[in-house]
Amino acid sequence: MKMSNMLISTLREVPAEAEIDSHKLMLRAGMIRKMASGIYNYMPLGLKALKKVEDIIREEMNDAGAQEFLASAVLPAELWQESGRWDVYGEEMFRLKDRNNRDFCLGPTHEEVFTDIARNEIKSYKQLPVNLYQIQTKYRDERRPRFGVMRSREFIMKDAYSFDKDQAGLDLSYNKMREAYIKIFNRCDIDAKPVEADSGAIGGSGSAEFMVKSEVGEDDVVFCSACDYAANIEKAPSTPEVSEKEDLKDLVKTETPNIRTIEELVKFFNTTEKKFAKTLIYNADGKVVAVMVRGDREVNEIKVSNALGGVVNLNMATTEEVLAATNAQVGFAGPINIKVDTLLVDEEVRNMYNFIVGANETGYHIENVNYGRDFEGIVGDYRNITEGEKCPSCGAKVNISRGTEVGHIFKLGTKYSEAMKATFIDENGKEKPFIMGCYGIGVTRTLASIIEQHNDENGIVWPLEVAPYHINVIPVNIKDEAQMEVASKIYEELKSIGVDVVLDDRNERAGVKFKDSELMGIPMRVTVGKKISDGEVEFKLRTAEMETIKIEDVVNRVKEEFNKNKLTIR
Amino acid sequence: MKMSNMLISTLREVPAEAEIDSHKLMLRAGMIRKMASGIYNYMPLGLKALKKVEDIIREEMNDAGAQEFLASAVLPAELWQESGRWDVYGEEMFRLKDRNNRDFCLGPTHEEVFTDIARNEIKSYKQLPVNLYQIQTKYRDERRPRFGVMRSREFIMKDAYSFDKDQAGLDLSYNKMREAYIKIFNRCDIDAKPVEADSGAIGGSGSAEFMVKSEVGEDDVVFCSACDYAANIEKAPSTPEVSEKEDLKDLVKTETPNIRTIEELVKFFNTTEKKFAKTLIYNADGKVVAVMVRGDREVNEIKVSNALGGVVNLNMATTEEVLAATNAQVGFAGPINIKVDTLLVDEEVRNMYNFIVGANETGYHIENVNYGRDFEGIVGDYRNITEGEKCPSCGAKVNISRGTEVGHIFKLGTKYSEAMKATFIDENGKEKPFIMGCYGIGVTRTLASIIEQHNDENGIVWPLEVAPYHINVIPVNIKDEAQMEVASKIYEELKSIGVDVVLDDRNERAGVKFKDSELMGIPMRVTVGKKISDGEVEFKLRTAEMETIKIEDVVNRVKEEFNKNKLTIR
Repeated sequence: MKMSNMLISTLREVPAEAEIDSHKLMLRAGMIRKMASGIYNYMPLGLKALKKVEDIIREEMNDAGAQEFLASAVLPAELWQESGRWDVYGEEMFRLKDRNNRDFCLGPTHEEVFTDIARNEIKSYKQLPVNLYQIQTKYRDERRPRFGVMRSREFIMKDAYSFDKDQAGLDLSYNKMREAYIKIFNRCDIDAKPVEADSGAIGGSGSAEFMVKSEVGEDDVVFCSACDYAANIEKAPSTPEVSEKEDLKDLVKTETPNIRTIEELVKFFNTTEKKFAKTLIYNADGKVVAVMVRGDREVNEIKVSNALGGVVNLNMATTEEVLAATNAQVGFAGPINIKVDTLLVDEEVRNMYNFIVGANETGYHIENVNYGRDFEGIVGDYRNITEGEKCPSCGAKVNISRGTEVGHIFKLGTKYSEAMKATFIDENGKEKPFIMGCYGIGVTRTLASIIEQHNDENGIVWPLEVAPYHINVIPVNIKDEAQMEVASKIYEELKSIGVDVVLDDRNERAGVKFKDSELMGIPMRVTVGKKISDGEVEFKLRTAEMETIKIEDVVNRVKEEFNKNKLTIR
Repeated sequence: MKMSNMLISTLREVPAEAEIDSHKLMLRAGMIRKMASGIYNYMPLGLKALKKVEDIIREEMNDAGAQEFLASAVLPAELWQESGRWDVYGEEMFRLKDRNNRDFCLGPTHEEVFTDIARNEIKSYKQLPVNLYQIQTKYRDERRPRFGVMRSREFIMKDAYSFDKDQAGLDLSYNKMREAYIKIFNRCDIDAKPVEADSGAIGGSGSAEFMVKSEVGEDDVVFCSACDYAANIEKAPSTPEVSEKEDLKDLVKTETPNIRTIEELVKFFNTTEKKFAKTLIYNADGKVVAVMVRGDREVNEIKVSNALGGVVNLNMATTEEVLAATNAQVGFAGPINIKVDTLLVDEEVRNMYNFIVGANETGYHIENVNYGRDFEGIVGDYRNITEGEKCPSCGAKVNISRGTEVGHIFKLGTKYSEAMKATFIDENGKEKPFIMGCYGIGVTRTLASIIEQHNDENGIVWPLEVAPYHINVIPVNIKDEAQMEVASKIYEELKSIGVDVVLDDRNERAGVKFKDSELMGIPMRVTVGKKISDGEVEFKLRTAEMETIKIEDVVNRVKEEFNKNKLTIR
C-alpha cells in the first residue's frame, strides 16, 4: 500500500485519556479511536494487525481440529432463562427489546448458544467429538472500562466449545486446546503463562488461565520461585503458619471503646496482627455467613463461595445484618455466640492460641480465645496465599504479580448440557448429556498485550508475524525521480512475493516518515536516498543499527528476516 | 477437511419455515440455523462460503483503493442526534441503554460514524480522497423478517464511505465503486444489474441499486425490452397517456350512495377506470397533501415525497384528517374545494377530459370535471410507471420484475458532512464540507442470492469461486484399505496444492455421501471405488455426466476446472 492513499492518523502527543503503554500507542499510531466509553473503532492500521492475530488463532484452532462457526451477537432471553443465567447475569449484560417487546441480550459469552446447537445437531456418539469455535464480537457492560481495548465493552473474542462423550474425551479436547493456546501466544510473541484457575463456582472440573504479567492486571497471580507452579490467587491453596504452642488462658472481656480496626487494636493491645482473628460477615445468596481469618490475612471470597457449594452473590453484610448477627455495631464481631447460618474458620485460626476476637457487643473484645474450647465452625482454607509463602507444589517461596487474562480454558462438564437437556445416544443406546469444555481468547486484548510487551520510547515494536506491515520503503525525497524509481521497484518486487510492504510516498520530510514508521512499529525499513548513486540503500530493523546494503540485496535481506523468525512469506 | 471430523447437518426434509430456494437449501445443507426470528447462526459450511464472498469483496475493494476499517456495532445516541436521525429512525432501529442509562443503538448503517471519523482525522485536501470500508454486522429490526438471511435482522454488510474534496472527485470515487461492484457480482456469478435508484429523499445527487431478479424481491424494477435502461420503479419516470380530445361538458353532481371504490364506480357509471381521477389524501410530516392520479394508476410515494422537498414521514391520512379536508367520509374526496395544504396533480390527469371525481360530500361524485377550468394544483409525475409503458430512454416497451437489492451506491454529497460539521481545508485555505459517497453490499444477502440463482432439484450448485469446498473425495467403502489409501492420497495431494478438498471418510453408504455432496453443492466429486484395480476413479462435475479418469490424472483434471473458470488455486 502506498502511504499517500492511506488514512494516516499518527499523533505526536500522548492522549490524556490513556494510562498504559498499549493504549497510548494504539491511539498514537492511529490504530484505534474511541467511539464511546469502552467502545472503539479499529482504524486501518489497527484492523490489519488485529486480522494477523485472528489468522494465527484461526490456523491453530483449525490445526487442533476445531471448526469455525459464527453465532449471532443478539441472543434471545429464552436461551439464558433455560440455563438460569438470565437472572444471574447482572448489569454486565446489555439487554434490549425488539419491536414486539421480546427480550434479547448482546451475548457476553455463548455457552447457551453452542449447547443449543449441539442438542439440535448432534444425535449420536458417532458424531463426537466436536469442537466449534468462533471469532466474534462480545458485549460486556463493564462497570469500569479502562486501558483502551484491554478492558472494553465491545470486544472480539475467540470462543470455542467442545462436546465429548466422556471425561477422557474432554481431557483430550482440553489438552489439545491447551497446546493450541501455547502455540498461539508463542506466535504472537507474548509471555502468556497457563496458570491454574478456579473452576468451582462455574461448576467445572479443571481450568487454566493464560496470564500476561501486567501492573494494571485485574488478577493476582502466584508464581513459584523454583518450580513451574503458577495459579490465580483465587485458586492457590495457602499453607497455615504454625503458631507456637501456648497453655490455654481464661477468657477476658476487655472494653475497647471505638476501637474497631485491626490497626487500632494492635496499638491498643500492644501486640501483633497475628494475635487477632477477624470475623467478617457476608450475605451469601440470602444466608448470613461469618468467615474467620488471622488479623493480617485476606479472605478469599472464591474459596468461601466454593466452600458453600457455589454462591452466586456473595456480598459483605449490611450494617443491619451485622447488628442482627452480633447485637453490635460493625467492628466488634466474633465467633462466640454469633448468630449466623454458617461459621467458616480458616485452618490457620484453628492452630492459634489465646487470640483476640470481637465480643459481639459494641465496644468490647475478648482475649485468650481458643478454637474448640470457645467455639467451633467449618475449618478450611478461606484466605489468600501471600508473597513468600510455601509453593503448594514444591514448597519453595512464591511470588505474586498482577496479571491480565488473555485466554481461559475450562472443563465445563455437564453444567450446561444438563440444564438445557443437551444429550446424545451413547454406544449402548443410552441418552447422556454432552461433556463440555469451553475455551476463550480475548483477541483484542491479545493485540493490546503484544504491544504492551513490545514497545520502546519511539513506539510499537511489532513481532514480524503480527506486524500490520512488514517493511516500510522510504524515498528520502519523492521529487527525486531516481529515488522514487528505486523505491517503487523495491516496493513492487516485495509486494509481488507477498511481503506486506508500504511505500511512504508522502510529500513529507524524511524525519517525519522515520518517526511515523517507528511509532507504527514496522519491523523493517528501507531508506532510499543519495546512496543509490553507489547502488546502495539503507536497511534498518526497528530496534537495530542501520546497515548499508546493495539495492539488489534488499529482497534477500528481507527473506533472511523471515527465515530468522521461522516464517514463510505468503 | 475430513468429513468424519465435521459437524454435518444435512436435512432430507424441506423445513416448513422456508419459502424460497436459498432459504430451504441453506437450512437443508446445514449452512445456517435460526436463533430467533430474523437472526441466524452460521454453521461451518455456511461460514466457509460466506468467507469466500467476503474475500472477493475485500479484494475488489482493496483493488479499488479503499481501506478496510472496523467500526463498533454499538453506537452512542449523540452521533445520531447530531445528524438528526435518532428521532427519524423508527422501530427499525434496535435501541438500548447502558448501565449508566445512556442511550445507544445497534448500528443499522454507519454514515454518522464515518463522518465523525473523517472530521476528526482528515484535516486537509492533501489527505483526500479517502474511501473507508468495513465488513461488519448490522442490525435492523425488520417488521417482517423473511426468507432466511435474505431479509434478516442481524446481517453482515460491506459498507464503504468515500470522502472527496469536490464533485468531480466524488464522481470518480463513485464510478470506481460501480466498477468494483460489477466485478464483485461477476465473480460471485450472480446476475445483479445496476439500476437507477431514487436518491432524492436521502438528499444525494446520484444512486444505483444492484438488483437481482427475484419473485420475492421487495422492489419493482423497470427494465427496457430494447435498450439497457433499468430503474427502480420508485425512480422510473412515467409517460402520460394522451387522452382523446373532447369538448368540455358541464359539471354534474351525481348521487353515489355507498359507492366508494374505483371498482364500484366503474360499475355504477358503466365506464372505464380511465374516466376517473382518484384523490388520495396524505399526512406529510404534519401537512395535509392530496394527490390525484388516474383511476387505474398507483401513486408513487417517493415521487410525492421528493416533490414536497423530501418528506420524512408520509402516511395515508386518518379518517379524521380526511373528514377535515373533504367534509366527507373516506371515498368521496375530490379536487374541487378540497381543504389541503398542497394538491398534487399527476400530469396524466391534466390531460384528461370530462372525468369523474369525488364531490367532497358523502354519497356524491362529480362528472365532467376538467383541470384548469374546475381546479388547479401542482402538476408533475406522481405515479408508478406500468408494464408496457414507454422506456424513458429509448421509447420501447418496458417490463417490470420483482427484484432484491444486493448492493447500493450512492452520492451523498454534503448531507452528513454539513449536518455534522465535517470539514477540511481546501487548496485556498478555506474550510469546506467533505463531498461524500456511500456504498453498501448485503454480504449475507449476496450469499443467499448466489444460491437462489445456482441450484437444482438435488441441492446447491456452487460457482467454483465461492464454493465452500471445491471437491469431495469419496471412498465407496471405507473398510476397503486400498480404496482408502487411494482416496487419502488424492485428498492429501489436492490439499497440499491449496485446493479446498474434503474427504468423506464417514462410515456411510456411498448413496448417502453422494446425496450430501450434491445438497452441499460441492462442484467436483471424485469417487474412489472398485475401478482402482484398473488404476481408475470416477470424476464428476456437479451438473455434468460422470467421467472415468486415471488416478494420476485427478490433479490435472482439477487444475483444468480452475483454468476453465479463470481461477488460480491458492
